[in-house]
Amino acid sequence: MVRRKEDFSRWYIQTIQQADLMDYSPVRGCMIFKPNGYEIWEHIQDEFNRKFKAEGIRNAYFPMLIPESFFEKEKDHIEGFSPELPWVTEAAGEKLEERLALRPTSETIIGDAYSRWIQSHRDLPLEINQWANVFRWEMRTLPFLRTSEFLWQEGHTVHATAEEAKERTMRMLKIYEETVEDLLALPVFSGEKTPSERFAGAERTYSIEAMVQDGRSIQAGTSHYMGTRFAEAFDIRYLNKENKHVHAYTTSWGVSTRLIGTLIMMHGDDQGLVLPPKIAPQQVILIPVGPWQKNPAIMEKIEEFNKALKDRGFRTVIDDTDHSPGYKFNEWELRGAPLRIELGPRDLENDQALIKLRDEEEKLTVDLDQVIETVEEELDKMQTRLLEKARQMNKDNCYTDIDTMDELKAHIEAKQAEGDHPGWVLAGWDGTEETEAFIQEETGFTTRNMPFEGQFEKKATCIVTGKPAKETVWLARAY
Amino acid sequence: MVRRKEDFSRWYIQTIQQADLMDYSPVRGCMIFKPNGYEIWEHIQDEFNRKFKAEGIRNAYFPMLIPESFFEKEKDHIEGFSPELPWVTEAAGEKLEERLALRPTSETIIGDAYSRWIQSHRDLPLEINQWANVFRWEMRTLPFLRTSEFLWQEGHTVHATAEEAKERTMRMLKIYEETVEDLLALPVFSGEKTPSERFAGAERTYSIEAMVQDGRSIQAGTSHYMGTRFAEAFDIRYLNKENKHVHAYTTSWGVSTRLIGTLIMMHGDDQGLVLPPKIAPQQVILIPVGPWQKNPAIMEKIEEFNKALKDRGFRTVIDDTDHSPGYKFNEWELRGAPLRIELGPRDLENDQALIKLRDEEEKLTVDLDQVIETVEEELDKMQTRLLEKARQMNKDNCYTDIDTMDELKAHIEAKQAEGDHPGWVLAGWDGTEETEAFIQEETGFTTRNMPFEGQFEKKATCIVTGKPAKETVWLARAY
Repeated sequence: MVRRKEDFSRWYIQTIQQADLMDYSPVRGCMIFKPNGYEIWEHIQDEFNRKFKAEGIRNAYFPMLIPESFFEKEKDHIEGFSPELPWVTEAAGEKLEERLALRPTSETIIGDAYSRWIQSHRDLPLEINQWANVFRWEMRTLPFLRTSEFLWQEGHTVHATAEEAKERTMRMLKIYEETVEDLLALPVFSGEKTPSERFAGAERTYSIEAMVQDGRSIQAGTSHYMGTRFAEAFDIRYLNKENKHVHAYTTSWGVSTRLIGTLIMMHGDDQGLVLPPKIAPQQVILIPVGPWQKNPAIMEKIEEFNKALKDRGFRTVIDDTDHSPGYKFNEWELRGAPLRIELGPRDLENDQALIKLRDEEEKLTVDLDQVIETVEEELDKMQTRLLEKARQMNKDNCYTDIDTMDELKAHIEAKQAEGDHPGWVLAGWDGTEETEAFIQEETGFTTRNMPFEGQFEKKATCIVTGKPAKETVWLARAY
Repeated sequence: MVRRKEDFSRWYIQTIQQADLMDYSPVRGCMIFKPNGYEIWEHIQDEFNRKFKAEGIRNAYFPMLIPESFFEKEKDHIEGFSPELPWVTEAAGEKLEERLALRPTSETIIGDAYSRWIQSHRDLPLEINQWANVFRWEMRTLPFLRTSEFLWQEGHTVHATAEEAKERTMRMLKIYEETVEDLLALPVFSGEKTPSERFAGAERTYSIEAMVQDGRSIQAGTSHYMGTRFAEAFDIRYLNKENKHVHAYTTSWGVSTRLIGTLIMMHGDDQGLVLPPKIAPQQVILIPVGPWQKNPAIMEKIEEFNKALKDRGFRTVIDDTDHSPGYKFNEWELRGAPLRIELGPRDLENDQALIKLRDEEEKLTVDLDQVIETVEEELDKMQTRLLEKARQMNKDNCYTDIDTMDELKAHIEAKQAEGDHPGWVLAGWDGTEETEAFIQEETGFTTRNMPFEGQFEKKATCIVTGKPAKETVWLARAY
């Protein structure tokens, strides 16, 4: 395998293929989620479903096809999405009267439904989530991170007041932040997107952004406050307590299968995939070694461990194929399995087994009666270790002392000379699209998001113009 | 509400709307699954996922868009599906070189992938399931039962031998049969479809068919044995132990959101929806009655019950809205909630509560300290009762003593004169498509499936020709 430092993109593609997570398909930009890749998504779904339901948010399903006229009701929305839409123009042998888009997101079709469902303040809040496939026709694709079809959840809520809608927007951002940190061991940077990076039609867009190992940023989730813009476009009004018909306030928020790409780029190493234990399809691999076929006691012990671990809810695999132990070790490392247990005749004699954690060099020698407990503890420790390691990596690659474009360019050059990436740069910004565009042209950096009050020290001056900064914003190269 | 006997179709539409299960959408034939409808699907998914995983079948996700050329590789397949396909012809502002179909089913795109993934006998069996939206452009639609977009699972397996593939085909049919019976309280008739009703491209198609309250049949699930037909079309070959490249044997099998329509038509009554407890989004409704706002002890007790029930895994709702008790009772009956607990000041004085089962007339008076246990028992009993009732209804409407077309027509007329439906008729069949077509023209009955050996006594002669019967087949009107 190519090393990360040599060619991160090639390393990424090799890693996902060796780990058997995906395959390409004959349809441009559409990928196949193979069982090992899809199961990661299933664990993500389970966790978010638990959290959403605890919030009182229920799942539903809306049609995938959206009439062209729906997009035109919100001007920014159609402008933002129309360059990426695939269209159904024929069905059952006939040309359709109106083109139907494959949904890129469902604000319009859901807005139309909500306008019928909401009449009175008693109908509010209305809070629904949908798990669905969505389409954005991409010219340059990258598995999990940028594909023409992808999977996601999209939540859509309606509220009587702006305050309540804003609260829901921020609450979902918080849930995203906590969940990806806890489940995927992904530290993220929360903040508000600049106006040019807002969701098409939103008043405010907030994101969680992850810095991965090549220093780039991945937008890992977004939460949008729409104000009354979609309510006006789709006539979502309710009779308030003063008996007046007024527009409601809406939000939407989503995370997608991008999260899978993010966690691979965050945790993988030069031996391939590294999966945080909580998300791994196979958490514990049990491998008999030595001349185990001649000694039935070995498989008996392995079966015993396997049963005990399964009973405690672990996802386990016994690898008793006829490959060599070395081949198996390598195979399961490539697949990112967090922990393996090795047991051979000599181990059994000594009343012990070997335990190897995916992210550590040394094997542990463990008494047989301590194996189950040790597995439990070590998987917990590994989950924490991956998060801490990612946090440290993030911290080491955030630069907060760059104040001018000259300094920024010098920083990028210096890092390049070292064969390193330039990481993220916290910059003052005058708030204009012109400076954003200028920064991107000069450096390839884009504005990621603007940290919330108190997270980082504000910058005094704009990195481009030197004028007083209106905002402080993370700059980085992004996927 | 209209009564079932008056107009079953209108009753069905009113029932699903009053129960807030669905809504129509602006896109022809595409429906919205509202939270109450979608949650039924989620419980169905959970149960099948458990069963599939226990079989070693894993989930994956394949692209929705299928190139036109793929369909053409299997002649029967394209003939069967092309009249119903919607096509994407433009994307991102450009006309596509090749039209892309919205999947009606995924044998082709999955077959193409399998041909790359399978090389050796070591790669077999390969058994994958997918949960997905699928499209079949329908002219006459009916919510849940026949819509242009619907949700389903489709399993696709590949095997080294015909025997193994046939075993998988039958095993999945059995899992369908057991699961819908256990979870949805739906008794079904298993059997093989006639050649004219086979899945396009299959060698054998088996189905579970449900008889609902208007005597019609609903095909509630299918399992197909493909032989080597798709393997030949997509070049799915493997190196066998004799070092020869040979074609593999494939199967596919699916159930869809049709199951929701089926259970509504099976269990509903003139008061609306009746949901089997295991599948109900809200299983237990707790309603304070009388002047409960003045007596805080009532809500305290209700909260206590609610907590105890939730702790035992029940899905509960406290209805403390300011509607009258009568309004609430009616509302929750319309929604099919299996059980409600009523508690008022007088009940509390007498140390008792009232329990009402959705499918029974009389309320039960229960000591307060017996409430939780009673709920548990009564929900179990209701689940069994619904299944038994459906079985009895099925039995009462199966006719096995009709031997000629004259008898069949007389039967239909007699039933019609009574204002009743003709149910299902077990008939001898000479095995020709001509007689099938003739029966349908004359009576509107179609062949549903052919019972397996030992389920019913075989018929000696063909109902149309009077010649020796080749097969014995269920005839019925169908959705």
